[in-house]
Amino acid sequence: MPVTGKILINGEWVKGGAGTFQAMDPSTGKVLEPSMGKASQEQVNIAAASAQACAGEFRRSSLDRRARFLNACADEIMGLGDDLVQRAMAETGLPRARIEGERGRTCSQLNLFAETVLEGDFLDVRIDTAMPERKPLPRPDLRYMNQAIGPVAVFGASNFPLAFSVAGGDTASAFAAGCPVLVKGHSSHPGTSELAARAIARAVTKSGLPGGIFSLIMGSGSEVGSALVRAPEIKAVGFTGSFAGGTALVRLANERPEPIPVYAEMGSINPVLLLPKQLESSAEEIAANFVDSLNMGVGQFCTNPGLVVGMEGKSLDRFIRAASLRVEGLEAGVMLNRGICRAYDQGIANITGQPGVDQEAAGLRSEDRPGFRGQAFLMTVSAKEFAANPKLREEVFGPASLVVKCRDKAEMTGVVMRLKGQLTGTVHGEPGEMADHGEMIDILSQKVGRLLVNGFPTGVEVCHAMVHGGPFPATSDVRSTSVGTAAINRFLRPVCLQNYPRNLLPEPLQNENPLRIRRRVNGKQTREAI
Amino acid sequence: MPVTGKILINGEWVKGGAGTFQAMDPSTGKVLEPSMGKASQEQVNIAAASAQACAGEFRRSSLDRRARFLNACADEIMGLGDDLVQRAMAETGLPRARIEGERGRTCSQLNLFAETVLEGDFLDVRIDTAMPERKPLPRPDLRYMNQAIGPVAVFGASNFPLAFSVAGGDTASAFAAGCPVLVKGHSSHPGTSELAARAIARAVTKSGLPGGIFSLIMGSGSEVGSALVRAPEIKAVGFTGSFAGGTALVRLANERPEPIPVYAEMGSINPVLLLPKQLESSAEEIAANFVDSLNMGVGQFCTNPGLVVGMEGKSLDRFIRAASLRVEGLEAGVMLNRGICRAYDQGIANITGQPGVDQEAAGLRSEDRPGFRGQAFLMTVSAKEFAANPKLREEVFGPASLVVKCRDKAEMTGVVMRLKGQLTGTVHGEPGEMADHGEMIDILSQKVGRLLVNGFPTGVEVCHAMVHGGPFPATSDVRSTSVGTAAINRFLRPVCLQNYPRNLLPEPLQNENPLRIRRRVNGKQTREAI
Repeated sequence: MPVTGKILINGEWVKGGAGTFQAMDPSTGKVLEPSMGKASQEQVNIAAASAQACAGEFRRSSLDRRARFLNACADEIMGLGDDLVQRAMAETGLPRARIEGERGRTCSQLNLFAETVLEGDFLDVRIDTAMPERKPLPRPDLRYMNQAIGPVAVFGASNFPLAFSVAGGDTASAFAAGCPVLVKGHSSHPGTSELAARAIARAVTKSGLPGGIFSLIMGSGSEVGSALVRAPEIKAVGFTGSFAGGTALVRLANERPEPIPVYAEMGSINPVLLLPKQLESSAEEIAANFVDSLNMGVGQFCTNPGLVVGMEGKSLDRFIRAASLRVEGLEAGVMLNRGICRAYDQGIANITGQPGVDQEAAGLRSEDRPGFRGQAFLMTVSAKEFAANPKLREEVFGPASLVVKCRDKAEMTGVVMRLKGQLTGTVHGEPGEMADHGEMIDILSQKVGRLLVNGFPTGVEVCHAMVHGGPFPATSDVRSTSVGTAAINRFLRPVCLQNYPRNLLPEPLQNENPLRIRRRVNGKQTREAI
Repeated sequence: MPVTGKILINGEWVKGGAGTFQAMDPSTGKVLEPSMGKASQEQVNIAAASAQACAGEFRRSSLDRRARFLNACADEIMGLGDDLVQRAMAETGLPRARIEGERGRTCSQLNLFAETVLEGDFLDVRIDTAMPERKPLPRPDLRYMNQAIGPVAVFGASNFPLAFSVAGGDTASAFAAGCPVLVKGHSSHPGTSELAARAIARAVTKSGLPGGIFSLIMGSGSEVGSALVRAPEIKAVGFTGSFAGGTALVRLANERPEPIPVYAEMGSINPVLLLPKQLESSAEEIAANFVDSLNMGVGQFCTNPGLVVGMEGKSLDRFIRAASLRVEGLEAGVMLNRGICRAYDQGIANITGQPGVDQEAAGLRSEDRPGFRGQAFLMTVSAKEFAANPKLREEVFGPASLVVKCRDKAEMTGVVMRLKGQLTGTVHGEPGEMADHGEMIDILSQKVGRLLVNGFPTGVEVCHAMVHGGPFPATSDVRSTSVGTAAINRFLRPVCLQNYPRNLLPEPLQNENPLRIRRRVNGKQTREAI
């Protein structure tokens, strides 16, 4: 299927009304055909209005139909075949295996949300039946369920052209909740975005759902993205990207006449604590796995381990030496786009220019090779300098990490205390010493959404138990996760029906429990009818 | 137990550092002894720091201990005996039966949260066990549970001196979640607040919990309240009160270096739709129940029915006549304080001064009676005028309601479309005509947290299925409820532990499932051990 450069508004593929732009192959720096249309403000407004117009129908759609639709999205994505893979490779510089793996993840994520929908637990149905004889006052019949919050704006991420983009986790979880979705595709992979949107649009048609439940717009975030967040029909926002981008959307959302929730995942430095005994017994092994994690996807993961904290001494020296050797052998990989590559170079220059920061190792240089390449770096700094310098706590998006050398446990605890909110925190420790560092680990746990032991944070499993979230500024909403089935909770709101006529109750709330879902009836969990 | 005028900081009863104020009996206008201390900024900061210092201990406290603590709070409140009832009556002008009823509600609410804690469903435990042999990548062991979000600031409401105040729903649900609580007591009932805080403080001591988990401060909202919301240790805010107050707290919270969630319940006009057939068959009965609801608690309920919408004609005239007769017989009741009484008089003057608004009925005047009294009012306006005038959609806090007369169904739908977010919406209709007005009711349902049929919105049951929430501006967070067991969700955040050592896992996540709570293990709900 060819890329046409059109955008999708209310089920129609149309020419963008605000000019065009072109994608670029980051491995060559050459522009890619065809020209891609940018949406006009008016097109954004039409998309938002059409989402609102069919929001009720989609909200009330049966769980079965919604699940079939999600599965159809996955089928249609696979049906795009190699066109999708090749376009994604060309637009991102990512290798085939990564793109194919990400496609599999994207589809199994859609399938998992289909299962989640069918199971119905996300509705959190609660029924307290009437007690007309109760004294001093009778109790009315009260029936509670989660409902779709309304149309959702999704901002595709640059670094996962499939799994966090048009058909990614935000879209899948919003659809699962029964919300229409308006995606602003990332300008870094617009053709990939169009193809994924074509798959979803076909699934919409095949499922007999209204076209307004899904639109794809393109354009600059500060224009089209702002228009989208300002549209009164939009009731929630999902975003994965930079701190500047995420906080700008939050500000816009808070300034609306009706403020709305924004789920912005804004990155993290993902601290890794090295406890002494574990480090002593396994410095080289940890170092090898650390560098693999650091350089995975040319370091362009939100969960990239950008900070290592350990106690100075022979073991940490061994770790640094082993990691340095491995870093020095790394080829500079192709980064996702020119902007990310430049920001990375600038970030490295900022960090290495700070007082007390030593560059321990650099990967192979890339001057003789085409494309936007990111050289790996390993740096060190003392805990004292780290404590004094907030710039060292900023994310550098790419394959770079800073090792903080602490003189003792107290200093190490101090470093942990100074950290801002993070997606992940990691501890390498032997079972015995974990307990000895209980306070430090507890402090770390309060700054993260996911706490790992003896592993590395890259690799975010799509499952029930995942949390890809965390305290500000890792995300804009500490109560949420953007990966895993709990992501559906972001797009729901509770509604209670009181003394509602039986024949008008939605299926999940009917006495007969026709869906056989789990419900809390008068305080007890049951699948029985009332 | 006498009221002393002290505030509670980190388990110690101390003199307020920023002067004093006195409560007033609104039924006489006389000040009440003793002088009540206002907290200084420094005292606020000490309270916040001490909450943070023991937040970990309380967060990790066993479910059993937390449940016993909640039940002890209820016992200690009952243990205050008539001192509490008399002080609350003196400070609010509310009658004995109401205060005793509210005390019962407050205690059963604490008991219900104790049950909720013990049951453990609020933890939403999810465990995906390791799959070390999986290809292409092994799956790590992932364990998810909800945790306390951290110290919570609670702002007591004026209109429920017990149930939405110091020991009210916000405090109970935050304690249940494992969060320390800092209450800013409402200046309208400071003695009642002190007594309730003394009960909680005793329960803290008897339960062997650290004193820092509960503090009570007093003072002006714009000073002490701002300091509280700005304190970096505070991680969430619960508030019930005015739109101006709630949005000010939201703004402060968003301006923090680390923004935090604010759950502000800011009131509502609670529209009541009268469908033609039901109105024709029961105009007088509906009118009688409507006026009872309108005048309950001198109209000082967030769920007071401030707007009635019906189609003009004989039936609506009968409704207005019957309601007017009943309103004209109402004694002007004592309002909660001078400020509310003045704002009510002003609100009535504002509404009756708008074009096209007719005063249909007024309750008995109160000039010869002591205290701050609120006269009941019933007004009417055409749908056309209502549509043109946003001032008619503002809440008037007190026993007043506006009837909007529509010419036809389309005009009535138009009125519903123009409504802002509401706590409740009510429909009076026969089963048959409900379906005929499906679109109108669906629009209403998207603007409310609770949708009632053939009832009245006052009376908010504390149970599992209640939603006391709704779209902005009814609340600042459409995803939440402040009444009912789901209120606990406001003070939780999900955390995932990856490959965590078995011996260090918290009880809810241990393989053996020692608490026998319901968990989702590899996708299936179970109480079994792993």
